[in-house]
Amino acid sequence: MNQNNLEKLKEELLELYHLSSAVSVLHWDETVYMPKKGGELRAKTIAEMSGLIHNKFVSPGFGKLIKSAKKDLDEGKLNDNDACIVREVWREYSREKKLPVEFVKELAELESRSEAVWAEARKKTDFKMFLPYLEKIVAMKRREAELVGYEKNPYDALLDLFEPNAKSEEISLIFFELKEFLVPFLQKIKKSKVRINEKVLRGDFPIEKQVEFNKAVAKKIGFDFESGRLDTVIGHPFTIHFHPNDVRITTRYNKKDLLSSVATTIHEAGHALYEQGLSKEHFGTPLSESISLGIHESQSRMWENVVGKSREFWKYFYPRMKKEFPSQFSKTSLEDFHRAINAVKPSLIRVEADEVTYNLHVIMRFEIEKELIDGSIEVKDLPKIWNGKIKEYFGLDVPNDALGVLQDLHWSGGMIGYFPTYTLGNLYSAQFYAKAKEEILNLEKEISLGHFEHLLNWLRKNIHIHGKMFSAEDLVEKVTGEKLSNQYFIEYIKNKYSEIYNLD
Amino acid sequence: MNQNNLEKLKEELLELYHLSSAVSVLHWDETVYMPKKGGELRAKTIAEMSGLIHNKFVSPGFGKLIKSAKKDLDEGKLNDNDACIVREVWREYSREKKLPVEFVKELAELESRSEAVWAEARKKTDFKMFLPYLEKIVAMKRREAELVGYEKNPYDALLDLFEPNAKSEEISLIFFELKEFLVPFLQKIKKSKVRINEKVLRGDFPIEKQVEFNKAVAKKIGFDFESGRLDTVIGHPFTIHFHPNDVRITTRYNKKDLLSSVATTIHEAGHALYEQGLSKEHFGTPLSESISLGIHESQSRMWENVVGKSREFWKYFYPRMKKEFPSQFSKTSLEDFHRAINAVKPSLIRVEADEVTYNLHVIMRFEIEKELIDGSIEVKDLPKIWNGKIKEYFGLDVPNDALGVLQDLHWSGGMIGYFPTYTLGNLYSAQFYAKAKEEILNLEKEISLGHFEHLLNWLRKNIHIHGKMFSAEDLVEKVTGEKLSNQYFIEYIKNKYSEIYNLD
Repeated sequence: MNQNNLEKLKEELLELYHLSSAVSVLHWDETVYMPKKGGELRAKTIAEMSGLIHNKFVSPGFGKLIKSAKKDLDEGKLNDNDACIVREVWREYSREKKLPVEFVKELAELESRSEAVWAEARKKTDFKMFLPYLEKIVAMKRREAELVGYEKNPYDALLDLFEPNAKSEEISLIFFELKEFLVPFLQKIKKSKVRINEKVLRGDFPIEKQVEFNKAVAKKIGFDFESGRLDTVIGHPFTIHFHPNDVRITTRYNKKDLLSSVATTIHEAGHALYEQGLSKEHFGTPLSESISLGIHESQSRMWENVVGKSREFWKYFYPRMKKEFPSQFSKTSLEDFHRAINAVKPSLIRVEADEVTYNLHVIMRFEIEKELIDGSIEVKDLPKIWNGKIKEYFGLDVPNDALGVLQDLHWSGGMIGYFPTYTLGNLYSAQFYAKAKEEILNLEKEISLGHFEHLLNWLRKNIHIHGKMFSAEDLVEKVTGEKLSNQYFIEYIKNKYSEIYNLD
Repeated sequence: MNQNNLEKLKEELLELYHLSSAVSVLHWDETVYMPKKGGELRAKTIAEMSGLIHNKFVSPGFGKLIKSAKKDLDEGKLNDNDACIVREVWREYSREKKLPVEFVKELAELESRSEAVWAEARKKTDFKMFLPYLEKIVAMKRREAELVGYEKNPYDALLDLFEPNAKSEEISLIFFELKEFLVPFLQKIKKSKVRINEKVLRGDFPIEKQVEFNKAVAKKIGFDFESGRLDTVIGHPFTIHFHPNDVRITTRYNKKDLLSSVATTIHEAGHALYEQGLSKEHFGTPLSESISLGIHESQSRMWENVVGKSREFWKYFYPRMKKEFPSQFSKTSLEDFHRAINAVKPSLIRVEADEVTYNLHVIMRFEIEKELIDGSIEVKDLPKIWNGKIKEYFGLDVPNDALGVLQDLHWSGGMIGYFPTYTLGNLYSAQFYAKAKEEILNLEKEISLGHFEHLLNWLRKNIHIHGKMFSAEDLVEKVTGEKLSNQYFIEYIKNKYSEIYNLD
């Protein structure tokens, strides 16, 4: 391949990125500002655009360019940047090419129908209603794994879509050890005599004042409002990026609960700081793309939990929050407040879980997914299996499937292999943060003074700016000097919660 | 052409409409919500999308379909709806095909640079700075007229882009008569002993309360907020449509002046009511498109002026406005308020002009444009010519070119042939409204009771729903039984302002 062809490939890629960026704007507008009746035609516009992008990507012209580039890559003819671009585009291209058009279409239609059925089934707490759909989805995802191919475990072919290169065998081991720590640790917490009063967090918080406070927090931790927005959303909060100079976050407000919007904003801002920190120079290539969902989640969860639920963070923000909402917090000490936002209570619902129990929710889903895909369990047995694990890990009974196996959207949308990235994010985040503490002088002191730029710059330099240059696996090793480990997270949880719950 | 080919043409058209709709969303977001630094890449995304749309439109495949359809049209083989679709698409297609790609590109670049130079020249009140650019634009627009072709007057080829089928010869006559009425009528007003106190409109109007009031007014006259939004804009207010179920209007607020935002909202809502009233069934074809800028402006100006500055309109809204802003209006009678919003004062700036003087601003631009294009005047003489007309029509002296020939953006953007549509809109609106009064029982009484649906339904049925089925010329005749006339507008102005200014 001559240099001209590579340039041509990059031009075509840039065009594809612009079109995808346009689709993202359409999605953002749809969720945040579109009037009610605009939905039907918007869906068609998005479908039209997506079809266009897909056709361009799998066109013979594009195919010729990427195949020739792949040859150069294999022959070692490309520099590091170009090698990254070609490797990552090839990954996506070859995956897309392995799936027959009819298969992709059938799966997309199935997912779309299943999501609606799942919503209805959850409302009616009727797993049987959802069962035939989930059976079909699992069957098709197993077929997808075969079509895509894998080395050892078919689940890896699905995982690869969300966490490229990750292997379920390694994850299983890491998660197993984590579970072995968490289950007894949770028992200890449950037996602790420390009683935390979470009611100190409840009150009356006018939405407009919450919006202002949320914006101030996001800005302070480094979210650039000249390269982004914070908007209100009714449904599930999200972050969306059009390019590093236009990254938008959303949060939702509850009049009685300020901390829920603040935690969400910090979480989404964590995602956004990653996106705003990607290379502007390389926009339109994988060099300006996030690595994986796990690494993304490591950023959001580091800011939300490791930083945003630390004593140091609130040493800085609590006095400011008290000033804005004096009637709510004037009688609550920083210590009581810190304990309240970190209260541990085993619960049935993943999205409401605390830092300690959250990963048990994820691990049980990972275990189930893996066995569904390798065929060792059947979809019809899911409620029983689910409820058994909840009993085993949390000691809780599941009163109905809406509070159990039907609670999450993911499976109905075909997102099998997505869940483990949440816990991988937590593990990465603790490992990265431990390294940051080593390398940044007095990091926690700086945080307590509101100096968040030290941490942000460290993340920018060590993680954000590289885009997809390294795999998640390699990045962790490059940044921290060792492979992904569960020990940093376990240490972090042990230290933090032993103190809070006064454990031995 | 077999039916299949026609269906294929419609499918391709629908795709093009979806893509254009996506570009409009990008534009809307850019103007209303995009963060500051997002601009550079947004411009590229829009350019990318626009290029895609253009390439699709002029592709050999599309060309074959439209040429074959045109043959069927010429042979009388199409039903009315299909005939309209093919006629209108052919109009656009053949115009686009007549302009060489290099010419279009050169003009687009020239316009883009000229707009920036114009803004700078206006700021510095330096016409000479703008002169070479405007000379090139006029030269290129003259060339465009030659490339596009025309029957009698090269100006018609430019006019056709904004007001299809309009002929400058006819417009000249209509405008000339109008001017012959307006200039002496303005003199009479100036000599009137009636003194209007416009200060009653000034006060302190908190923006949030203005927003609420504007929304209430837009909703009351029929703007469907489930099919649209009202947002705040910093620059020039506008209406944008994605399809009839998603039409968005913008307005701007001045803390000291409530009526300016209200007038703008009513104007933009007038445009939006037209767009919301277009056929949903035929979306994606010219049957669901507005006819011309003149007809569009007839809707916005009818609501803004004929309705929105009438005594009847404010009989309904004034008590409500008083209630919302009691400290401002409690001492002002409806009569004094009505006079204040209709005060006539010759001014240098078109966008600030009242109903009486507004058309003189437009007519002088039309006269100048026509002579620039037929070559009877030169660009370098524009300031002198401009200032002479201002003296002749308004009796005013122009202190500098920023308040004179440099005031409007249009020419810098190559929009020659656009201005006359403003006055055509006023003429259409008066003629339509006169007919509506004949056909709707007690129309003005109904308006004073807040019953706007009678007028809206009449406009929907007689104008909006037809899309481009009829030309502006034919529609006027179909709806009012006669050709476009200036007499309705002249009567309207004479009656309204003779009463306000107590003329004989």
